[in-house]
Amino acid sequence: MPQSNSANSVGVITPQIAKFDEPLTLVSGKTLASYELTYESYGELNADKSNAILICHALSGHHHAAGFHDGDKRPGWWDACIGPGKVIDTNKFFVLSVNNLGGCHGSTGPTTTNPETGQPYGSDFPMVRVRDWVESQARLADRLGIDKFAAVIGGSLGGMQALRWSIQYPERLHYSVVIASAPKLSAQNIAFNEVARNAIMKDPEFHDGHYIVKNAIPKTGLMTARMLAHLTYLSDDAMGEKFGRDMKSDEVKYNYSPEFQVESYLHYQGEKFSTSFDANTYLLMTKALDYFDPAQYYDHDLAKCLDEATCKFLVVSFTTDWRFSPQRSEEIVDALIEADKDVTYARIESEKGHDAFLIPIPRYINVFGAYMNRVAQELKL
Amino acid sequence: MPQSNSANSVGVITPQIAKFDEPLTLVSGKTLASYELTYESYGELNADKSNAILICHALSGHHHAAGFHDGDKRPGWWDACIGPGKVIDTNKFFVLSVNNLGGCHGSTGPTTTNPETGQPYGSDFPMVRVRDWVESQARLADRLGIDKFAAVIGGSLGGMQALRWSIQYPERLHYSVVIASAPKLSAQNIAFNEVARNAIMKDPEFHDGHYIVKNAIPKTGLMTARMLAHLTYLSDDAMGEKFGRDMKSDEVKYNYSPEFQVESYLHYQGEKFSTSFDANTYLLMTKALDYFDPAQYYDHDLAKCLDEATCKFLVVSFTTDWRFSPQRSEEIVDALIEADKDVTYARIESEKGHDAFLIPIPRYINVFGAYMNRVAQELKL
Repeated sequence: MPQSNSANSVGVITPQIAKFDEPLTLVSGKTLASYELTYESYGELNADKSNAILICHALSGHHHAAGFHDGDKRPGWWDACIGPGKVIDTNKFFVLSVNNLGGCHGSTGPTTTNPETGQPYGSDFPMVRVRDWVESQARLADRLGIDKFAAVIGGSLGGMQALRWSIQYPERLHYSVVIASAPKLSAQNIAFNEVARNAIMKDPEFHDGHYIVKNAIPKTGLMTARMLAHLTYLSDDAMGEKFGRDMKSDEVKYNYSPEFQVESYLHYQGEKFSTSFDANTYLLMTKALDYFDPAQYYDHDLAKCLDEATCKFLVVSFTTDWRFSPQRSEEIVDALIEADKDVTYARIESEKGHDAFLIPIPRYINVFGAYMNRVAQELKL
Repeated sequence: MPQSNSANSVGVITPQIAKFDEPLTLVSGKTLASYELTYESYGELNADKSNAILICHALSGHHHAAGFHDGDKRPGWWDACIGPGKVIDTNKFFVLSVNNLGGCHGSTGPTTTNPETGQPYGSDFPMVRVRDWVESQARLADRLGIDKFAAVIGGSLGGMQALRWSIQYPERLHYSVVIASAPKLSAQNIAFNEVARNAIMKDPEFHDGHYIVKNAIPKTGLMTARMLAHLTYLSDDAMGEKFGRDMKSDEVKYNYSPEFQVESYLHYQGEKFSTSFDANTYLLMTKALDYFDPAQYYDHDLAKCLDEATCKFLVVSFTTDWRFSPQRSEEIVDALIEADKDVTYARIESEKGHDAFLIPIPRYINVFGAYMNRVAQELKL
């Protein structure tokens, strides 16, 4: 496989599974008696286990962030940033990437067999919050003997986890990198999630969330959810540049099959997602987003909330991101400054909307890379 | 009924129907052998029929723009702007408001009986374009003896009709008022429409558009479409101000019923719409929006296209409108300036998003009212 020989790739990666038999009581009050976390790692953990980085994934993400699964042509979702000599340099760091609890890529979630029933959990899988993910990730760190992460890093919903880590386990990370994220969803953000959830749950193939045992998939609802989400990931400008008003044919068809290129693109993305992602996981992840609001327990004062943190912060936003606009990142930055924390902020010019965080935009890579060099230097890695 | 006695209301209004037996060949090439237009009028047509104003409606609008239908508690959709002493002053003007062809509020459309089959047209109703609406409105003007409108006025899709009038029948209007509109949809605009259409058409109750004869309604799809559209009508700020992250109850429920106020609001709006609007009409209207691009026949040069116009223009935009942002209105204004037309432009500060065009915002009302006074004065009405 040529990609595994590439000098800046982590090569072929095999996911691992950690099984936990200690019960985990979730914020909701429900308890998982046992669970598994699927994860990957890139690079080598050093002798004193001080070079570990945790990557937290976004709404539709998973643990496969870098390198190639055997036989795959496309690398993990953040391969642009993780590898030897890359921003998150696997020559220096041991990088850990976990599929979140409730996910559908190997970790225990709605598609897993519920030991109490012998059937897939489906909608009986308990709701998880960002706090629960941090807790489960901390247990995985315990398992691997990692007392303190060099950094916890994430974009979007992943950035919320990185932020939550800083106050939930302040003594367990040196740096928190929060990219294209927000301290809580706005009413508009929640509304977009609810339109998606409504489309999924009203799909007749949803069967109250127990579609697997009915041998069904709420494909239509998931497709609508994904088409809509995709729209919010791209900027108006990026879509304009990529598709404009280009049509598949010069002749107007006067029917409802996709005519404009942008329609075909959304259909393709929606179709692909609707057969590869679990609907219940999508619902869970969107609710975790909606509920995230760490400042609510500190009189809605984000500075007071972040006062708990002892790590240093890098916050990054992108100019045309309208899902989590720069203003939302700046709420975090302002609160960190008010709380007298060490914070670096970069507002990156980009036409790529929310998706920019996945793309190796030169200034982004430069800023992020320089910061990670600082992390390595200060921690003497 | 108290509202009919109100000094600035046009009072109780009874819609009228105009039946046309002259065939109308549409841009698509299809022909309607006969059709009806449902319309309302407010104020009195003067002796020389020089005081007529045409109001063009938006995507989910209809002819009932002002006053009250007998027994109704809520007035027409633009009652804030139409009435005695209001911006569009019915003491001076005769105001005509038509349900567009293909609509579902009385004019011939998908819910009407197809004379060829004796069944509702359903999805057999031919696609209509903005040009077809202008043509049908011109025929209604002929019927009423109106050679030239004092003004053609519309917001959003209605603004596109007002713009189209200026080049399709330049000799038949003195003024064109184009509010919260755009010279063509962007890829993002088209994408939002396609998500809505996909949700409607994949609803199992859609039955290829022949749901009426099956005694069905694609309620779920229409609800998704409306929830999504509503999202694009409000600004992030307006939703934040109206709902924030307020929850219906202090206790988090950890289930999927609407918890945040914004979710309940969207459900309410979606439910209401899904039982009152026709799905095929929604599809038709969104396609008319997608196809609208008058400059495409003039080497994609909007100035060259608008060179045909002889009327004067008022263009209005709203700062937080992200469906058709001020930039889109400014494309029209720039083209009109380049084409050496008489154009007045107002960019109105508002938190209300696209919906602002329906709301009596003081500066908007002042600018619009002053312009309509100028119209009346210049035409000696």
